Amino acid sequence: MARVDIKPTTVLHPHPVLLIGTYDQDGKPNVMTASWGGICCSDPPCVAVSVREATLTYHNLLSSQAFSVGIPSRKHVELADYVGMVSGRKHDKFQHTGATPIRSEKVNAPIVAELPFTLECKLVQHHRLGLHTIFIGEIVGIQADSDVLGPGGLPDIEKTQAILWGGMGNNHYFAIGEKLAGAFSVGKSLK
Amino acid sequence: MARVDIKPTTVLHPHPVLLIGTYDQDGKPNVMTASWGGICCSDPPCVAVSVREATLTYHNLLSSQAFSVGIPSRKHVELADYVGMVSGRKHDKFQHTGATPIRSEKVNAPIVAELPFTLECKLVQHHRLGLHTIFIGEIVGIQADSDVLGPGGLPDIEKTQAILWGGMGNNHYFAIGEKLAGAFSVGKSLK
Repeated sequence: MARVDIKPTTVLHPHPVLLIGTYDQDGKPNVMTASWGGICCSDPPCVAVSVREATLTYHNLLSSQAFSVGIPSRKHVELADYVGMVSGRKHDKFQHTGATPIRSEKVNAPIVAELPFTLECKLVQHHRLGLHTIFIGEIVGIQADSDVLGPGGLPDIEKTQAILWGGMGNNHYFAIGEKLAGAFSVGKSLK
Repeated sequence: MARVDIKPTTVLHPHPVLLIGTYDQDGKPNVMTASWGGICCSDPPCVAVSVREATLTYHNLLSSQAFSVGIPSRKHVELADYVGMVSGRKHDKFQHTGATPIRSEKVNAPIVAELPFTLECKLVQHHRLGLHTIFIGEIVGIQADSDVLGPGGLPDIEKTQAILWGGMGNNHYFAIGEKLAGAFSVGKSLK
């Protein structure tokens, strides 16, 4: 194969599609899409999301010190795309889309009721990186639709029908594909 | 649907499968799998990976101040699983698996030659979160197999045949699935 150098940019496969729920200082709920994010610590369980200062979510995160991270299903692809394109300063995204904000009982953040599961997070660290600031939230609660739980009682990716973003090299949403092999298992053949 | 509370844990859909390449202080290459990671800043382009202090990679990151992030294809699923299960302190993972370490020309880190593309990163920040420490790398180079590039010259997720990890609720690797809709596009129907 021919190996080539590419100009540094934000390409990685795959990106998650995360819906970040926050309240503003008046208690109005907002939700935005973020693909720069994911789990970042096992104990305490933490999730990271990166947000630009230009967004309403950035300021809501700092004032409320809390956020939710909702995982959309394939049936929410239009919703996920829409709330990533418009600003909560100009649009009431819940009212406009008909999505239902529910107040978390654990943190000062709204949950999008329609999503299969949502992490409830308290802000524990944030660090400016450049255009984006990374916000680290400790996961202090999880709300899930009981229909998406697997045998172990956790959301099962084959039941949530989660989506992913192809990123800059293929700017589409994709479904989760076929099951390939067991993790912490298939590699034992190399031991 | 019935909404239930779940004990806080590290569940999010999907997780990427990232192969982190580092050198130790003697210049010996190591590679480990990380799924706590992803892009975290657009400008400068940065990637975050979280690593436990118990790993050799943690100490290599601090001493070399650099790392690579390789993206495996479905044909690398055994390799990716294996290098996440054994320690570089006890095993020469390159020698054992036959994977080929190539020295990055941009940073002090090895690249796994067989992978479709790899980010070359210099360490710019790290923050202890708990069991894991998050390491932020500025992407200063990208090496890619020319066969996986799309029309825009970037790695295309349909060509890289990247994989994902289902996580704690379904502990398997999965392929990327069907293309669902255009991003920054399908949501316009809600405007």
